Amino acid sequence: MTDTLDIETEPLALDPDRLFPEGKASRAVARELYGEVADAPIVSPHGHVDPNMLLDDEPFRDAFDLFIRYDHYVTRLLHASGVPYGEIYGEKADPRAAWRTFCAHWDAYQATASGYWLRHELGELFGATEEPSAASADRLFDLIQRRLAEPDFRPRALFNRFRIDTLATTDDPLDDLAAHVELKTSGALHGRVIPTFRPDAYMDPTKPGYAERVEALTATVAGAADDYAAYLEAFRARRAFFIDRGAVSADHGVETMATLDLDPDDAAALFRRTVAGEASEAESRAFTAHMLTQMAGMSVDDGLVMTVHPGVLRNHDEGAFRAYGADTGHDIPIAAEYTRNLRPLLARHGNAAGFHLVLFTIDETSFSREIAPLAGYYPSVFVGAPWWFLDAPDAVQRFRAASTETAGLTKGSGFIDDTRAFLSIPARHDMARRTDAAYLARLVGEGRMPLIAARRMIVRMTEQQPREVFKL
Amino acid sequence: MTDTLDIETEPLALDPDRLFPEGKASRAVARELYGEVADAPIVSPHGHVDPNMLLDDEPFRDAFDLFIRYDHYVTRLLHASGVPYGEIYGEKADPRAAWRTFCAHWDAYQATASGYWLRHELGELFGATEEPSAASADRLFDLIQRRLAEPDFRPRALFNRFRIDTLATTDDPLDDLAAHVELKTSGALHGRVIPTFRPDAYMDPTKPGYAERVEALTATVAGAADDYAAYLEAFRARRAFFIDRGAVSADHGVETMATLDLDPDDAAALFRRTVAGEASEAESRAFTAHMLTQMAGMSVDDGLVMTVHPGVLRNHDEGAFRAYGADTGHDIPIAAEYTRNLRPLLARHGNAAGFHLVLFTIDETSFSREIAPLAGYYPSVFVGAPWWFLDAPDAVQRFRAASTETAGLTKGSGFIDDTRAFLSIPARHDMARRTDAAYLARLVGEGRMPLIAARRMIVRMTEQQPREVFKL
Amino acid sequence: MTDTLDIETEPLALDPDRLFPEGKASRAVARELYGEVADAPIVSPHGHVDPNMLLDDEPFRDAFDLFIRYDHYVTRLLHASGVPYGEIYGEKADPRAAWRTFCAHWDAYQATASGYWLRHELGELFGATEEPSAASADRLFDLIQRRLAEPDFRPRALFNRFRIDTLATTDDPLDDLAAHVELKTSGALHGRVIPTFRPDAYMDPTKPGYAERVEALTATVAGAADDYAAYLEAFRARRAFFIDRGAVSADHGVETMATLDLDPDDAAALFRRTVAGEASEAESRAFTAHMLTQMAGMSVDDGLVMTVHPGVLRNHDEGAFRAYGADTGHDIPIAAEYTRNLRPLLARHGNAAGFHLVLFTIDETSFSREIAPLAGYYPSVFVGAPWWFLDAPDAVQRFRAASTETAGLTKGSGFIDDTRAFLSIPARHDMARRTDAAYLARLVGEGRMPLIAARRMIVRMTEQQPREVFKL
Repeated sequence: MTDTLDIETEPLALDPDRLFPEGKASRAVARELYGEVADAPIVSPHGHVDPNMLLDDEPFRDAFDLFIRYDHYVTRLLHASGVPYGEIYGEKADPRAAWRTFCAHWDAYQATASGYWLRHELGELFGATEEPSAASADRLFDLIQRRLAEPDFRPRALFNRFRIDTLATTDDPLDDLAAHVELKTSGALHGRVIPTFRPDAYMDPTKPGYAERVEALTATVAGAADDYAAYLEAFRARRAFFIDRGAVSADHGVETMATLDLDPDDAAALFRRTVAGEASEAESRAFTAHMLTQMAGMSVDDGLVMTVHPGVLRNHDEGAFRAYGADTGHDIPIAAEYTRNLRPLLARHGNAAGFHLVLFTIDETSFSREIAPLAGYYPSVFVGAPWWFLDAPDAVQRFRAASTETAGLTKGSGFIDDTRAFLSIPARHDMARRTDAAYLARLVGEGRMPLIAARRMIVRMTEQQPREVFKL
Repeated sequence: MTDTLDIETEPLALDPDRLFPEGKASRAVARELYGEVADAPIVSPHGHVDPNMLLDDEPFRDAFDLFIRYDHYVTRLLHASGVPYGEIYGEKADPRAAWRTFCAHWDAYQATASGYWLRHELGELFGATEEPSAASADRLFDLIQRRLAEPDFRPRALFNRFRIDTLATTDDPLDDLAAHVELKTSGALHGRVIPTFRPDAYMDPTKPGYAERVEALTATVAGAADDYAAYLEAFRARRAFFIDRGAVSADHGVETMATLDLDPDDAAALFRRTVAGEASEAESRAFTAHMLTQMAGMSVDDGLVMTVHPGVLRNHDEGAFRAYGADTGHDIPIAAEYTRNLRPLLARHGNAAGFHLVLFTIDETSFSREIAPLAGYYPSVFVGAPWWFLDAPDAVQRFRAASTETAGLTKGSGFIDDTRAFLSIPARHDMARRTDAAYLARLVGEGRMPLIAARRMIVRMTEQQPREVFKL
Repeated sequence: MTDTLDIETEPLALDPDRLFPEGKASRAVARELYGEVADAPIVSPHGHVDPNMLLDDEPFRDAFDLFIRYDHYVTRLLHASGVPYGEIYGEKADPRAAWRTFCAHWDAYQATASGYWLRHELGELFGATEEPSAASADRLFDLIQRRLAEPDFRPRALFNRFRIDTLATTDDPLDDLAAHVELKTSGALHGRVIPTFRPDAYMDPTKPGYAERVEALTATVAGAADDYAAYLEAFRARRAFFIDRGAVSADHGVETMATLDLDPDDAAALFRRTVAGEASEAESRAFTAHMLTQMAGMSVDDGLVMTVHPGVLRNHDEGAFRAYGADTGHDIPIAAEYTRNLRPLLARHGNAAGFHLVLFTIDETSFSREIAPLAGYYPSVFVGAPWWFLDAPDAVQRFRAASTETAGLTKGSGFIDDTRAFLSIPARHDMARRTDAAYLARLVGEGRMPLIAARRMIVRMTEQQPREVFKL
């Protein structure tokens, strides 16, 4: 499908009642509930914004850089439409030409989550009045270019304008977090930017560079590369370092949710095999599974919230991965299992005081079958917000309907934007608030929740849940 | 999340149109359809009420005993909110203090199935006019206490007031069913209380006490503990005994839906190994799978309806299981497979005249993929009502939408409350009737069913289906 | 459930607004969108109509032959209701008696997909004004009989009246396609009837007659039965033959979506084992998986669109299969996996220019989890329309909601009726257009798509997508 559109330009207009139900009564309730939180500060306890962007505070370069090049939610649909990745990721990619291509493929984004956010950003932030199209592409490019030159559109100004209260980044355990310290010291931001401890690459022996990473890690405590005690000690020390710089959570991206709780001697022996490159694939998986339980134990000790994102087969298209790197649109979900897999970890730490374990999924079948029942029993377990492909209006409604009847509204993580697209943050949080307002308005309309409770709950879901779950 | 609420008391009001759609036309249709069955007698062919409660007819003790202590749907959400189980299941648990804790955590129940039923029971049965909260807890406790002292609130009076036509209990195969006989003889109930044959513990070699149970079973026909023929004969005899006392169904709770149809000699040899404690885990599973097919064969012969509840990992939290026993809120669903697993059983008995096999699930993905297609072909197979976590307004709508287009409305089991919470029975059946009315009203509104047919179908779904499927 | 209904006759009326939402505003939008495509020609790029029916142009025999005997969507629900298949498939089945049985069981079809289509066909095509029932059965039978005697109800006349632009059949690779040629030459049809290459039986060594079929295939290029090169060459030649007769796609029905890309020598050796009947079940499966990748390669070369229909366990009831043959209502879905399974095929051909791979499923969990993410990245991958049990109003809405937010509307296959019931073709396409109109109207109402875009998209979904995806 390499065809392009060639249509007249169409007006872009944001419906102030978007995502609300149609019925008169429930629409009025949705409006009222949304009104309670529409202007609430943004708490973003998990995401992928680069702190250096805020530190450097350079103007964004152009519409292509801003909306396309670094957003694999967007690039993948161009690729799916037959646009070669060379036009996007290539060194000589022409920003204006790439933007034209994107606008000419706007219908590929109709009814998608990305389309929804982009329309919000173009309309709300840039004051665009035309839908993207081949006809409007140049005018939109120029409009955005003019705006980006204004001081109000520099990253720090936007951060403050977005009313961001807390923004968590995702960081390598050996990162010195200098950017975070400097940002804090600068006092330029009205909210705080906090790091997140993300140790995957140090826990998964199948990842490239694992042995080198482990060696660098153990070196921080002057341990040998294959010294299991030093390995654990170094993790503890780095977590303490992160906590000292404001971190509240440790994030884990794993292929499966498997956990194990090995005997320490067996674990140490297995660890040595992984560092020596002698572990089989099954042994490597067992080691990662064991380390998740270890990380849970460290969270029990040091209080870092543990978040887990399983169920993704990364870099499905190996050719594209070699040519253009990771995060280029072809991480594809796989079925995920939580009930059996989490049992070892939860047997050890599931009822530990103060332990918080937030479970994410992109296999939505697990919401009603596994995650909600687990969160509806274990005090430590929380239902992570709809993630990635599921962070979209219809998917969020399915998530609410599938998880709430079993787990209620007080065991949710609050909304997580999980984005590297800085400009989409307000659009995503606004979408979450609107969908929650629509969901609660339906319950009120169906006589399942008093309006007064719904007003209390939407504030709780928007502000209180993320702060409490992430210990902010 | 151990925080408690401290809010002003709020009015509790039950919307007479609750669960109905908002649109004017479809709401009117829903009202009309609900009106057809709102006062219909309750047919409850599967549940866990203790018959001795009705035999003894003692007043319920207090609000805590009535609503919390024995309802693991409720206790699990307290546990999930950080309330230690010692405060609920402990010998010295203080009823009023525990009730206060529950009321203070009322927001944990907002939008849950339990919250819906509890609000119905408090409002409809006890005439409560306040939502539970820290502020209202004592007044509600006292209100309930006063009511419980009235003769109208004794179990038998409630049974009759609830218009229960048939209530099935769940019973051990060796139970003498004296309570059932006595209840029948007493003539105190306007409806009947019938037993259900539940042989799991005698068919699953991995369950504690299996060998002793089998020995007791075979002893009833004077057979040796490891005599397979005696084992089968004893099952047949006990089923006949149950049938004689009014039983209409045999219920099977299994981890997976696996069935097998072994050669009789192989089965006898395997049985001996299970009794001797020599069977491996795989052999034990094979034996259970084989016995399901045997039980189906007995159902073909003696007419007992066969119901199966697979897909639950029981007692996920082993520590809590050891401390507080089973049914304390941590049975967690797992994925269930029906198509391949049921083939051996259905190959042998799927088309047998008069055989009824009702399939339940808490893995809702199986409704459209497996259960509805099976029920839409095999005359013996019926779609069990949404069970457990799925017995909630949104889940029921998903169930209807997922199963009906393939299996129609005449291959459903009718509503099953499956409850041990006696007081919730009318609330659950009322919810089922309302959601069915809402579902059919939608079909009428979408031009997919004439109103006259919808009126016929809701009566069929509410009254005729359970009677026909369970041969009442 | 062998009971029959005996009710008064009820009026049959088709709501002109059927399947549209109830809200005034969105209903108006749905009407407008539906109006854009209500009379569009029918493009049916995949189905099972017998071309000889159109070639012979004999009148249909009677209501039973027309609506029941050859439609296993219909017969299965009679079987499920306790009607013995001998009354339907038996040589001496009495058409009028069988029709009476069907009408007496009409409530078994309430709210099913088949019931929806049958009501549409009876009302729209035959002008019936009574719902089927025991009371109306004879009058309906006679009405249909009278109509079938009219020239307007002969197959060709109906083909033209249905405004069929393209109708694809499903054909054996060795079919001479004479019927297609003759039909084209006749000039009797306003649209075209094109063949589809369906090589399953030549690629799956576990299918009866595999070796004989392979021998006949390789003989077409004068190769030995176990000559792998000849085998591939013969496939290529037959595909070219099909393309020459108008074919645009090759269709593959497989149990799982497994693909492999074996070394050519290993593949040749494995092929020899399959022909010699020496391949194990695992080897047979590996060979089929390898051949899917080979077929993809041929599609890359010759341009035939590749469609795949995995996830069905065929002929679940072996007894019925032996007595009445295949396609008698007991093909039952199983879970399907696409992400891992398709990786070998997509690694080789996923980004090939012009390659189109359309993925169908009856495991709807795969829409949001796997198929939409794959179609949202690979230019070759398209989301197949809801298939079989999922081709029903509620399932289609779930499909749109589950797949569109991730894959958009431009990576869909367009509607596929996949039917052998000729008369149901307009009913199915009409249902698809109505559900799409309702879906888009909801998006417009929720402020997620401008009306002008929705009008463009419904035309694209109905007319442009199937033509582009199937290269028509």
